[in-house]
Amino acid sequence: MRSVRKKPFTLVGAVDGLFLAEGKGFETACVPGLDLTFEGIPGDAHSGATRRSGGREPWYPRRTEIRNERQISVVSHMELAEIAKGLGIDRLAPEWIGANIAIAGIERLSSLPARTLLFFEGGATIKIDGDNAPCRKSGRAVAAHVEGRADIERTFSREARHRRGLVGWVEKPGRVALGESVEIRVPEQWIYE
Amino acid sequence: MRSVRKKPFTLVGAVDGLFLAEGKGFETACVPGLDLTFEGIPGDAHSGATRRSGGREPWYPRRTEIRNERQISVVSHMELAEIAKGLGIDRLAPEWIGANIAIAGIERLSSLPARTLLFFEGGATIKIDGDNAPCRKSGRAVAAHVEGRADIERTFSREARHRRGLVGWVEKPGRVALGESVEIRVPEQWIYE
Repeated sequence: MRSVRKKPFTLVGAVDGLFLAEGKGFETACVPGLDLTFEGIPGDAHSGATRRSGGREPWYPRRTEIRNERQISVVSHMELAEIAKGLGIDRLAPEWIGANIAIAGIERLSSLPARTLLFFEGGATIKIDGDNAPCRKSGRAVAAHVEGRADIERTFSREARHRRGLVGWVEKPGRVALGESVEIRVPEQWIYE
Repeated sequence: MRSVRKKPFTLVGAVDGLFLAEGKGFETACVPGLDLTFEGIPGDAHSGATRRSGGREPWYPRRTEIRNERQISVVSHMELAEIAKGLGIDRLAPEWIGANIAIAGIERLSSLPARTLLFFEGGATIKIDGDNAPCRKSGRAVAAHVEGRADIERTFSREARHRRGLVGWVEKPGRVALGESVEIRVPEQWIYE
């Protein structure tokens, strides 16, 4: 085991965007508040205690029912701006890639480890499953917003790697409001070798 | 971010113990097979889609309802023998500390990171939340099995640190049988700094 073991520590950020994907659609739209339940965000495309497997789980037949650890997508405007720069486009909106919560004030948000806890000021808690590996579906969604750049469907995954935010689930239900603060508990970490 | 980033890799172990805590009791008893459902092990003391918070979650009032990421306790006989040696006792049985599954053939099982997947031969999958921090309750349970060693209630936590196994939840339901193999997918890892 490596000796780079790190003790838990705390960071503080703020909610600077809330988004909801109503119904089956992938893209989200801006909202002033989000209700988080044990099933995720009611009405959101990714809500549910379980979900169907897909390309991220090549070890299962497609549409196998598995526990849903991907209820909520969390992103950082800073990282989305870096992806946009890498792609040579003006901006990348959280809504285009189905994000639910944008958090400001945290450097390299996407690198926060699995088991990180996001304690929202209003009482809700999200537990982080880990970084959200960018997929071609997101690339296609971004490409659809940029005239004449069909190539983004393929190049998005490379540029968005480790910048596409985090996924997680609701550990404790509650309502999250725009502008509220979020205390982030980074767990003990080490490398398994 | 540290440059010790590690790609995913696979290990192979075998199930060499299955245990069930029927009802509210903490200790488990040997069984030949375990049915894993989305709620955990039916009838086990730690089953449920949600659980009540306790001393591990000092940030919540006691008995707050939170999502249950601690449905299953996984241990290694090798590590339990190391704890026993550290405590100066002959053995430490998985049953005493409420373990559900013992896995053989994996070095430093307790150091496997959050997000690790355990694919059991019979089709069930457990997703790992992370290492199971030893608590005084386990220490008390061990002490109750060793004549004249009441001190173990307090010393267990120190000796068992990073050797007390893992906790996780059922990602995909199925039946686990004694002796079957388990393929372990260790996810990409890095340290957040």
